[in-house]
Amino acid sequence: MTRRTFIPALSAAFLAKSATQPTINAARLREHIEKLSECGRLPGGTFADGVSRVAYSDADVAGRTYVMSLMVAAGIMPKIDSAGNISAVRSGSGNLPAVLIGSHIDTVPEGGILDGALGVLAGLECLHAIGEANATPRRPLVMVAWSDEEGRYGSLFGSRAFCGRLDVAALSTMAATDGERLVDAMARAGFDASRAPEARAPDGAVHAYVELHIEQGPRLDEAGVPIAVVDSIVGVRRTRLIFTGQADHAGTTPMERRRDAFLAAAEYSLKARELIVERGGGRSVTNIGVVQVHPGVSNIVPGRAELVHEMRSPDAETLDRLAEACDTLAREIGLRRTIGVEVRRMSTTTPVTCSPKVQGAVETACTQLGLGWKTLYSAAGHDAQNLALLTDSGMLFIPSRGGKSHRVDETSDPAAIERGANVLLHTLLTLAR
Amino acid sequence: MTRRTFIPALSAAFLAKSATQPTINAARLREHIEKLSECGRLPGGTFADGVSRVAYSDADVAGRTYVMSLMVAAGIMPKIDSAGNISAVRSGSGNLPAVLIGSHIDTVPEGGILDGALGVLAGLECLHAIGEANATPRRPLVMVAWSDEEGRYGSLFGSRAFCGRLDVAALSTMAATDGERLVDAMARAGFDASRAPEARAPDGAVHAYVELHIEQGPRLDEAGVPIAVVDSIVGVRRTRLIFTGQADHAGTTPMERRRDAFLAAAEYSLKARELIVERGGGRSVTNIGVVQVHPGVSNIVPGRAELVHEMRSPDAETLDRLAEACDTLAREIGLRRTIGVEVRRMSTTTPVTCSPKVQGAVETACTQLGLGWKTLYSAAGHDAQNLALLTDSGMLFIPSRGGKSHRVDETSDPAAIERGANVLLHTLLTLAR
Repeated sequence: MTRRTFIPALSAAFLAKSATQPTINAARLREHIEKLSECGRLPGGTFADGVSRVAYSDADVAGRTYVMSLMVAAGIMPKIDSAGNISAVRSGSGNLPAVLIGSHIDTVPEGGILDGALGVLAGLECLHAIGEANATPRRPLVMVAWSDEEGRYGSLFGSRAFCGRLDVAALSTMAATDGERLVDAMARAGFDASRAPEARAPDGAVHAYVELHIEQGPRLDEAGVPIAVVDSIVGVRRTRLIFTGQADHAGTTPMERRRDAFLAAAEYSLKARELIVERGGGRSVTNIGVVQVHPGVSNIVPGRAELVHEMRSPDAETLDRLAEACDTLAREIGLRRTIGVEVRRMSTTTPVTCSPKVQGAVETACTQLGLGWKTLYSAAGHDAQNLALLTDSGMLFIPSRGGKSHRVDETSDPAAIERGANVLLHTLLTLAR
Repeated sequence: MTRRTFIPALSAAFLAKSATQPTINAARLREHIEKLSECGRLPGGTFADGVSRVAYSDADVAGRTYVMSLMVAAGIMPKIDSAGNISAVRSGSGNLPAVLIGSHIDTVPEGGILDGALGVLAGLECLHAIGEANATPRRPLVMVAWSDEEGRYGSLFGSRAFCGRLDVAALSTMAATDGERLVDAMARAGFDASRAPEARAPDGAVHAYVELHIEQGPRLDEAGVPIAVVDSIVGVRRTRLIFTGQADHAGTTPMERRRDAFLAAAEYSLKARELIVERGGGRSVTNIGVVQVHPGVSNIVPGRAELVHEMRSPDAETLDRLAEACDTLAREIGLRRTIGVEVRRMSTTTPVTCSPKVQGAVETACTQLGLGWKTLYSAAGHDAQNLALLTDSGMLFIPSRGGKSHRVDETSDPAAIERGANVLLHTLLTLAR
């Protein structure tokens, strides 16, 4: 893969032209980010101290309501589809396929205030600014807040539904790691999960998709470059491993007779990391973030241990190879320890290449605005990778301060946010021509 | 430690005498065991399919009420002390210190129906049978159901209070692994935790203590011997280990920068087991039954992992040495992985030697009943070890079928239960003379 960095000279031609063009209201965008961060704000937290706004939680529902109120204020009418995606359209002058911008407002538990929210609120600000400038592009512009991006149920749920990639047969049994079923979580938020597949986009309805996001890693911040043009997005594979041993008295059962499910899981966790670091080609990562031990009391030998193992790579073949090697590792540990092992694939996203057309539009926007940019692959999964299966899809990143993300102190500088939103706006105008 | 096995010839002298002596009503005892097993019976379970009757749960409160109703039916009046222990007295002919028998009715989650319940209901049956036979021993007989034996709060809570061994300063902050504080759990069941120390026994009130229990291990069952005379009880040490790393995005954080708290905990779990098996002298055991990983989602690197590590040994010096070696191991792993490690000692019981007087009384009872016996150490902690700090204290075991315990299929044969209850009765009568 090629890596390009381009630092343009300040464009006098652009500066002369920009006064007549729509531009981001940075103060308004900032206010919207602060307000949305109140939905799910952590106890005792202040602005920038993190939020828990997990999909279909009360905080998520409050956040969705807030976003819809902003759409109304921006003069565009919110719609909700049957997968829980919220969207609003600004009509174009022509009857053409639309340009979509979007991201998500759900967060991981104890996550940051920008992951997803930035793309949604910046997208909204773009449509607001375009409306205020009375600029009418040729193509309709649609902004979308995708539901459940963070993978409470599978992965990238809302955009998966929109792109016709839901596993319809699995909907009735899908459950979160806390045990809540999808059908119950969606029902609480007012949705009928069985109708989620109806959110599929009509053929030919979408011309292009672009998403602004924080990088969530340290590369832009350390390079001192304001914008990343994303050329590819990693695939993410989530697997649930269930180790089944025998619950026994932790005092009276002789050590050599114990079939301890947790120790098997612990061995797998350490060795799977080693395997992926060694054989992942330097661009694959691994995490075991969910660990459940049953019955979970100090004086009983663990009879069951469950792990969720997530691995990522920008290369599809590598991802397949690593997943297979890990399955073999789990079976080998189970055999040696007389522990049952069940491997359930929870979700898989395929690594994708971003559209050259969208990459080109982002680069053009950077040039227009006199901003340097750098080509990067995305080490996180994003809704843009589902959209890539449907249309020309791409992303741009702004730096994450210190590379921190999925944690309460995730942040980006206000100037970086303003730059990113303006690049998004110009990208959108280019694509909508 | 000496190990003795004695198989007596059937005693004609005893058989001639036994018609005039109190004897266990095995059918009634069996009925009480079945009825008590309904309190906390697992969903869909039938008799012998296990119970969850965790201390201060609704099931535990129901079980306590049932035991008190049985006391009333046996003609002895129930009393509850401020630590939640339930007791009832059958007066003796002399004004002397009492002989106590007892055990507990709380269980581990998804435990069996005999662990604890057997000793309580057999003790009650002894007092019932003595009453029905109009036999009045010299000493008062007291049966006790100790509260929270299984260590929801610390370990052997009720008998610890009775023996004046509570850590009074810790009462207000003690919390179960599920987070519920002792004060709240006791308040739900109608108790004021701050008054628990008032349950302390007056000096000189107790003459001896004896407890019947299932062995919970395979030794008696495999040897085909009906009764174990317990000569010592292991000490149990519970330690909470808190590993603190850094929650980070599981895709974008480079592998070499991650500070994964769970992987440190996994390494500790595997190595601590190895250490204890190697250096524990063949009679020490170890278990990590509680594992909590925070924030517990698949796409965040674990920022915190907590373990509860329990180790047991019948030798106090070995237990101290192993605990110290494990603390060193945890610190070494923390340093190497840049993970903070906090080691909190949760509870410690000291290994004890059972009273020769009580051991002798159990052996005499076996001889009287023509039953073989075997001397064993107890690999599980029991209330009898707190009582050993106060008085002559001892235990007897009956076989656990297949050595199974702390699991739903824990059981003993009806004939084994009847034999054990009759040995308890005869032991009691000997001690009360």
